[in-house]
Amino acid sequence: MTSIKSGPVLVLGGARSGKSVFAEKLVTASGLRMHYVATGRAWDGEMQARITEHRDRRGADWQTHEAPLELAGCLQAIDAPDRIILIDCLTLWVTNLMMEERDMAAEFERLAGYVPQAQARLVFVSNEVGLGIVPENRMARDFRDHAGRLHQIIAEISADVYFIAAGLPLKMKG
Amino acid sequence: MTSIKSGPVLVLGGARSGKSVFAEKLVTASGLRMHYVATGRAWDGEMQARITEHRDRRGADWQTHEAPLELAGCLQAIDAPDRIILIDCLTLWVTNLMMEERDMAAEFERLAGYVPQAQARLVFVSNEVGLGIVPENRMARDFRDHAGRLHQIIAEISADVYFIAAGLPLKMKG
Amino acid sequence: MTSIKSGPVLVLGGARSGKSVFAEKLVTASGLRMHYVATGRAWDGEMQARITEHRDRRGADWQTHEAPLELAGCLQAIDAPDRIILIDCLTLWVTNLMMEERDMAAEFERLAGYVPQAQARLVFVSNEVGLGIVPENRMARDFRDHAGRLHQIIAEISADVYFIAAGLPLKMKG
Repeated sequence: MTSIKSGPVLVLGGARSGKSVFAEKLVTASGLRMHYVATGRAWDGEMQARITEHRDRRGADWQTHEAPLELAGCLQAIDAPDRIILIDCLTLWVTNLMMEERDMAAEFERLAGYVPQAQARLVFVSNEVGLGIVPENRMARDFRDHAGRLHQIIAEISADVYFIAAGLPLKMKG
Repeated sequence: MTSIKSGPVLVLGGARSGKSVFAEKLVTASGLRMHYVATGRAWDGEMQARITEHRDRRGADWQTHEAPLELAGCLQAIDAPDRIILIDCLTLWVTNLMMEERDMAAEFERLAGYVPQAQARLVFVSNEVGLGIVPENRMARDFRDHAGRLHQIIAEISADVYFIAAGLPLKMKG
Repeated sequence: MTSIKSGPVLVLGGARSGKSVFAEKLVTASGLRMHYVATGRAWDGEMQARITEHRDRRGADWQTHEAPLELAGCLQAIDAPDRIILIDCLTLWVTNLMMEERDMAAEFERLAGYVPQAQARLVFVSNEVGLGIVPENRMARDFRDHAGRLHQIIAEISADVYFIAAGLPLKMKG
C-alpha cells in the first residue's frame, strides 16, 4: 500500500472505479486522526443510500463533516497538524456550487488558495467525467468544463495524483 | 508483444480502443488452443455486423462458444489445461443479465468463484464506461455501477490488468 | 518538460483535461517555427469563444491555418523541415467530415498516408470520447467509432502518444 508522505493528494476515477475505497485506505494507513468531509447532499433516496453505504464502510474512527458549499471554510475550521482530511468528492461540490449559481472561478480560487497552507493532510476524491461523448445538454457541458478546470487546479498543487480504474491506481504525479 | 505467464487477464478499454485486437494478440501468442466465448446477442443489424467482423478477424483456429448468460457454466464446460479462453466481453454479459433481471451480486460471485480454479487461461475483455457524465437514465446508471463493480472484482483476481487507449496498452497490474 | 525528438506526436485527453496546453508547451519547447491548424468551425457563440480563448493563449508567434475538411492538403501546403505543426483537434475534423458525409475510411487513409512523409514535425490533439456509456443516438455512436478508429491509426504511426488527465501526461508510447 502506498502511503502519503506529505502534501495534498488527488484521487481521480470513474463511477464505481473504487476511488473512494482507495482514498480511504491511504487515509487509514497514515496513522493520523481521520476526518471526512462529505460534499454530497442527500436530495433523493439513491443518493442517501450511497452516503449511508460510504459511512458504514468507514466506521467509527472517522469524524464526519458536511460541506456542500463552504468547502474552504470547513477545511479551515477543522485544520490541525495531526489530522488527515478526506474530501469526497469535488464533483459533487461543483454540482452544488452550480445549483446555487456561485462564481465558479472565485470559489475554485478560494479553495486553491487555502490548500497549500493547510496543516492537515488533504486527500481529494473526484470523478473524471470528461471522457465520454460531448453531452447535448448545456448544463452538463458546463459541469464537465468546471470539473475539468478544477481537476487541473488541484492536480497542480497536489503532491500525488492517482487515476483509478477497476480498483487499481495509476500514479500520474508524485 | 507481452505474453501471458499465468493467471487470468483483464483487458479494459473504451469503445473502438483496440481492446479486442490486443486481447486476441495475447491469446494467439500463448500457443495454447484458442477458444472464444461471445457474450453478445445479435439483436439488431449493427450488433450482427460487429459480431461477424470480430469472427472474420479471428479466423478458423478459434473455437467459438456463446454465453449470453451462463458464463461460469460455459467456462466450466470447456475448461482444460491446454486451452486459453477469450471472453468478449463482460459489459455485454452485464447487459444481458440486467435484461433478464438476474441477481447481479449472485452472478458476479458465481463467476468470481470459478475464475481462480479454472485450468484454462482466461482473458476477459470489457468496456470501461464510467468516465463520462452521469447518465440521466436510471438503467444506464445502474449498468455503469454493475460494470464498475464487476471490473473491480475481476481485476482483484486477475494476474494482469491492461487499460487500452488508441490501441496502446497501459499496464495497471502484473 | 518532455521534448519532441522526432516523429509525429498524438496527445489524447478528455474535455478540459489540459491536452491543448500540454501540446502547445511541447511545440513551444521545440524551437521550430510554430504553425497551428484549427479544424474547428465557429458554428455558434460557445465554439467561437473557445477558438478565441485558444488563439489568445497561443500569442503572436504562431501562424494559424484553418482546415475543417482538407487536413492532409493543408499540412502538405505548409510542410517544411524547420516547422512544427499543431493540429487541434482530430475529433472536430471527424465531426466536420461526418457532416459532409465524406467517406471516412478514405479520408483517414489519406491523412495516414501523408503523415509519415511530412518534413515538419506534427503534433495531433484529440478528444478521447469512448469511455462513457454507449450513446443512445446512432450518430453519436458512429462518431465514437470513427474517432476511436482514427486514434488507433494515428497512434500506430506516431512516435509518442500521451494520455492527459487533470493536466498531467501519461506516456502511452515513445
